[in-house]
Amino acid sequence: MTVFTHMTMSLDGFIADPDDGIEELFGWYGAGDVAVPSANEGVSLSVDERSAEMLASYMTAGALVCGRRLFDLTDGWGDQHPVGAPVVVVTHRPPEDADRWPRTTFVDSVEAAIERAKDVAGDRNVTIASADIAAQALDLGLVDEVHVSLVPVLMGEGIPYFARLGAAPHRFEDPTVVEGKRATHLAYRVRRD
Amino acid sequence: MTVFTHMTMSLDGFIADPDDGIEELFGWYGAGDVAVPSANEGVSLSVDERSAEMLASYMTAGALVCGRRLFDLTDGWGDQHPVGAPVVVVTHRPPEDADRWPRTTFVDSVEAAIERAKDVAGDRNVTIASADIAAQALDLGLVDEVHVSLVPVLMGEGIPYFARLGAAPHRFEDPTVVEGKRATHLAYRVRRD
Repeated sequence: MTVFTHMTMSLDGFIADPDDGIEELFGWYGAGDVAVPSANEGVSLSVDERSAEMLASYMTAGALVCGRRLFDLTDGWGDQHPVGAPVVVVTHRPPEDADRWPRTTFVDSVEAAIERAKDVAGDRNVTIASADIAAQALDLGLVDEVHVSLVPVLMGEGIPYFARLGAAPHRFEDPTVVEGKRATHLAYRVRRD
Repeated sequence: MTVFTHMTMSLDGFIADPDDGIEELFGWYGAGDVAVPSANEGVSLSVDERSAEMLASYMTAGALVCGRRLFDLTDGWGDQHPVGAPVVVVTHRPPEDADRWPRTTFVDSVEAAIERAKDVAGDRNVTIASADIAAQALDLGLVDEVHVSLVPVLMGEGIPYFARLGAAPHRFEDPTVVEGKRATHLAYRVRRD
């Protein structure tokens, strides 16, 4: 079982524009004709063949960790994240109507969230879906792999994937590379030496 | 003939640490056993086979454009840049002892520097070696290709490759990818549509 983080990122390191817009970034999710099944019927993915294989592997994750901001932005994916896995949210103030999301749990620290997600996932992988949680988990040594779908655009400004790293440098092995259409998928294993 | 910029960059977008240090980044220049000839005898490069091919192609550039800061940091490479090509420096105040660098010319704008470099290069390519000049040239539409040697490290802080882009977004074609040792080499062609 692997704890990994995956983001779609511009060549200058942004995962959204300053207003959370993703127009420049998420083109690859529709850039091919291979449909990738999603657990959320509102989300349809149709990518190139190489990206499809990679994306399908993400869909097998056993649990997903995110921050409160992403949870709020997506309204908790209607309790049905496209990956299909239960979601663990890091927050100091769980929503009062938390029973709207029965498959979602709320915990108050990154450490607790990763631990909880591992319990939920069993033998399957844990994905971290929020950049700020990913950065904290990296600093805590709780991340095994960092995955980046690198999009051929310079946005100039936006929300960075990797910000406020307190324990950098973080070093990785050379990545596995999948040359997708409108995104180059890079998977890095954290070096523990 | 192509105007391109090439930098070695961390996964979080830095080309040097805050003190201009490059320890985390330039390991790939010595990570293999294929020697790549350099025009400057103080610089020896010994890289993996795939990186060697890519690096050798850079060595055929016909002119190199840089900013005053890099020129000062390297003392103008002793008038002998490793690539072997004449250097054009963008500066508003040429050094008083400019005759120390007979193969180097000093011009006062990015536009003039690219034009001058094209004249010098003839049929060969022009390389931009300073990040701030690269950004300005991109904004001016004077760059054909952006090349990145992406190093598997998160530095957390440092000097960014792409900063202060005034005309972003800049969009590119999908890159050609060379999977080198300790760096993944990505070459992007600027989209003109």
